[in-house]
Amino acid sequence: MSKNTAILLMHCPDQTGLVAAVTDFLHKNNGNIIDLDQHVDTNEHYFFMRVEWNLEDFAIPKEKIDDFFGTLVGKKYDMKWQLHFSDQPQRMAIFVSKMSHCFYDILQRCMSKEWNVEIAMIISNHPNLKLIADRFDLPFHVIPITKETKREQEEKELALLKEANVDFVVLARYMQIISDNFIQHYENKIINIHHSFLPAFVGAKPYHQAYKRGVKIIGATSHYVTAELDAGPIIAQDVEAISHKDSIADLVRKGKDLEKMVLSKALWLQLQHKVLPYQNRTIIF
Amino acid sequence: MSKNTAILLMHCPDQTGLVAAVTDFLHKNNGNIIDLDQHVDTNEHYFFMRVEWNLEDFAIPKEKIDDFFGTLVGKKYDMKWQLHFSDQPQRMAIFVSKMSHCFYDILQRCMSKEWNVEIAMIISNHPNLKLIADRFDLPFHVIPITKETKREQEEKELALLKEANVDFVVLARYMQIISDNFIQHYENKIINIHHSFLPAFVGAKPYHQAYKRGVKIIGATSHYVTAELDAGPIIAQDVEAISHKDSIADLVRKGKDLEKMVLSKALWLQLQHKVLPYQNRTIIF
Amino acid sequence: MSKNTAILLMHCPDQTGLVAAVTDFLHKNNGNIIDLDQHVDTNEHYFFMRVEWNLEDFAIPKEKIDDFFGTLVGKKYDMKWQLHFSDQPQRMAIFVSKMSHCFYDILQRCMSKEWNVEIAMIISNHPNLKLIADRFDLPFHVIPITKETKREQEEKELALLKEANVDFVVLARYMQIISDNFIQHYENKIINIHHSFLPAFVGAKPYHQAYKRGVKIIGATSHYVTAELDAGPIIAQDVEAISHKDSIADLVRKGKDLEKMVLSKALWLQLQHKVLPYQNRTIIF
Amino acid sequence: MSKNTAILLMHCPDQTGLVAAVTDFLHKNNGNIIDLDQHVDTNEHYFFMRVEWNLEDFAIPKEKIDDFFGTLVGKKYDMKWQLHFSDQPQRMAIFVSKMSHCFYDILQRCMSKEWNVEIAMIISNHPNLKLIADRFDLPFHVIPITKETKREQEEKELALLKEANVDFVVLARYMQIISDNFIQHYENKIINIHHSFLPAFVGAKPYHQAYKRGVKIIGATSHYVTAELDAGPIIAQDVEAISHKDSIADLVRKGKDLEKMVLSKALWLQLQHKVLPYQNRTIIF
Repeated sequence: MSKNTAILLMHCPDQTGLVAAVTDFLHKNNGNIIDLDQHVDTNEHYFFMRVEWNLEDFAIPKEKIDDFFGTLVGKKYDMKWQLHFSDQPQRMAIFVSKMSHCFYDILQRCMSKEWNVEIAMIISNHPNLKLIADRFDLPFHVIPITKETKREQEEKELALLKEANVDFVVLARYMQIISDNFIQHYENKIINIHHSFLPAFVGAKPYHQAYKRGVKIIGATSHYVTAELDAGPIIAQDVEAISHKDSIADLVRKGKDLEKMVLSKALWLQLQHKVLPYQNRTIIF
Repeated sequence: MSKNTAILLMHCPDQTGLVAAVTDFLHKNNGNIIDLDQHVDTNEHYFFMRVEWNLEDFAIPKEKIDDFFGTLVGKKYDMKWQLHFSDQPQRMAIFVSKMSHCFYDILQRCMSKEWNVEIAMIISNHPNLKLIADRFDLPFHVIPITKETKREQEEKELALLKEANVDFVVLARYMQIISDNFIQHYENKIINIHHSFLPAFVGAKPYHQAYKRGVKIIGATSHYVTAELDAGPIIAQDVEAISHKDSIADLVRKGKDLEKMVLSKALWLQLQHKVLPYQNRTIIF
Repeated sequence: MSKNTAILLMHCPDQTGLVAAVTDFLHKNNGNIIDLDQHVDTNEHYFFMRVEWNLEDFAIPKEKIDDFFGTLVGKKYDMKWQLHFSDQPQRMAIFVSKMSHCFYDILQRCMSKEWNVEIAMIISNHPNLKLIADRFDLPFHVIPITKETKREQEEKELALLKEANVDFVVLARYMQIISDNFIQHYENKIINIHHSFLPAFVGAKPYHQAYKRGVKIIGATSHYVTAELDAGPIIAQDVEAISHKDSIADLVRKGKDLEKMVLSKALWLQLQHKVLPYQNRTIIF
Repeated sequence: MSKNTAILLMHCPDQTGLVAAVTDFLHKNNGNIIDLDQHVDTNEHYFFMRVEWNLEDFAIPKEKIDDFFGTLVGKKYDMKWQLHFSDQPQRMAIFVSKMSHCFYDILQRCMSKEWNVEIAMIISNHPNLKLIADRFDLPFHVIPITKETKREQEEKELALLKEANVDFVVLARYMQIISDNFIQHYENKIINIHHSFLPAFVGAKPYHQAYKRGVKIIGATSHYVTAELDAGPIIAQDVEAISHKDSIADLVRKGKDLEKMVLSKALWLQLQHKVLPYQNRTIIF
């Protein structure tokens, strides 16, 4: 929990010697590797890697690692990379509407320190869940949205997020479509939970669609939000068996359990810096 | 296995006293109920029931049960019903193409007497699996299909099925689309396995579609074949978790396991007369 | 949710005409059956049934149903039965220790009205979770337990439960073994969550045991508490795949998710009166 | 499928620079890494790695790789390692008794070339499945076992295995306990399928045990055979939900599906050299 590690997420065209170059860089500077996972997409000839190492005896000071790695390794191999430190908790904004199941699930994990993250704020288009936020002394902004006000209200939200140094946004059953403009400010940094096993039942009322189609399993999908509705890179999915005995109300009830678990699973991965989106797919280390 | 039971599958508009009427009919005639399952669709106000009872001491002779039930119960309540006897094995035709995984799985269950069913014949548009059928002394008809010959070749198939008194048809990864004409001869009696969790990835190459979309689960769906492609009543579905490490070849390999298990699960239900299709959904008793 | 129904749970030695007798009783008194599920244990020749019907036009007044059913049906067939009414929410006591995940999950379902139940009180042997109970204005009793004080402290608990008319007790990761004396007061009315797929890993530290054994799945089991530790009738179980990469801390983290979901699933069944324990097994309608 | 790759499985006490040393060795000799997976057991401070690389341009000839790797890397780090080549199919002996489900499943995968493996022979203590082996022209040895003859019959089996250069043995529902003497000849090379989610229900009649305990899930476990019954390193496990409706016969039927799928999953991993047993646990790469 109170680890003092650095994490590098990197990707580049595949070529011989990539793993050797990175591990050599760490090894020579006394970086003890705690976790290393790499993947080669053999169709695309593309290389992906996540490596986490102990900073304790590491020869390069924290603030210089990015520069050193870039100069000595990254640029040579035409890499894109992210550098993270485990002792710097990310700051998360939670968007909600009226339903509380995902919200409670996140709260419990934060409050019990299962997750190392800061809840910067809650934003909602409805006041319903304010009471819960109050009980936990969390800042709660009610920002109603209509077609006419969407643009300006989103600007308000963006200002709040920026001011609070929010790293990523969680849509915890937030029932509004986010505009392209908003998305561009947080590319691959807005995590949504959709209440179906995508790509089945895109859009509104997926449980009604599922009931009508007579499926024997329902699902939930957590994904990064992109311009196309419910079509962004998938982080996590899960399903549950249903039967003809389940009414639409039963699907909604059972689906809530899926939604909160799948969303929390995706958030856990995000908090560990274990998700690397690439071309509408994700590498999960 | 060597049971001597009768099975009634029935459905009708819901009304008070339906269960009482049926169980009373059986009770008064010394029919000991072994299994009873009923379902009310409270949206559609529709009633469904499957009841299985012992014929040993049943007062009404087998050949008269249909008439007696219809007169005394069925017609009164505007029911539709099917009557089956457990000692009369159904006759099944298996349609295959080149892949053998579903075929072997079915064979093993028939040969080991796990299933009480007669394999009337194998039909294929390719000769590849004839060798296996030969090893087990099963009739194997190679009936190639092209756009031009489809109509007449399907007529040949229909003639073979009729002559052999086939009760239902299994498409065990048979890679041809069945015509509406053919389907009408075997309504809700053609069971297909589609290699995706429908309604996601309808049509050709679902594993390629799944790979491209970056899903984290793949699935398979067994359903009755209707005029609309991959849109008939679903009998069984299952899924398996995948990851970015899985190539398309891995999806195909893992998918085969899903396909054969889901198809065999649907066939087991069919053989037990436990599937009741209704308005593009199925009741699974 | 605001249903006005009655529920009968019954069991007795199997014999012909049981379903007919019950449905006839309801039918003749204008009771419209909403749900009926029966099961025959063909080994034990034992019959189980749950039936739910609408009270709106039912001819027998609520307070007389038990007597009428007993006289006209139950006693004739040597039945044991329970009668419940959907408009009378059960009263539940929650026992906790230090971990909050199950507690929050239950809270959310109660607060959001997903469950129709009254939280009579929280009892804990530690004060840690009092803050949460306070935030939701729930009575919280800290009752520390030592070997020496167990007997008297349990008496205190029993007095509290009795005074508050508690129907059943939930052990939401309450880390104390309940004495036989206590159990006898709430037979088949204490629901525990054990953090393994029982009967594997009975007793203390099941995740450590699981890690040591090198299993590839972990599980959780909700069951009624009986005199023998972790050996009572199982209500619900679920599992999750793990790998060699999972440390014991990972098992604990993943296990928490299983625990809360499995416990809540069991509680949902309990609240619907869908669980009928019989000889250390449960019938789940 | 027709890959020309080498695979190294290695483990040793953890220390800095292990990944760098191995990847450097491969890189300098033009070995293009196709797959690399490593794991550090942070409790035991132990390092595990599987690396697969292309032999096409590799500078070291196949027959010298073991020596070169050992001298330049392995011995320096006190490693234990195995070297395998993908173009050398392993030779497998299948032990069966009377049940055919696992046997067919293996057959189908071999015949359809899903698996790259040679079936060296079938050994059985009963003649029942000889007919199937005959249909596929596979050598089938009937070697009956009694308490008295066990020692000498196992010697016969060992002689047959040795003569046929068998790499590993599959117990495909072979209902005999293997003696310690036999096991010592094939340490971590005998793969069994046990019909329960171990460690629950060790030994005989696990489905009867499961039924009696009233579990809501059943499982199957594939593991290496060690001297202690059903206690060896677990390779794969899976489970399936059951209910009170399932008789013991149903558990047996559903369990067969689990058994064959779990066994085949373990065999697939074995064939890919993806299993590394260590201290009664397995690393699955």
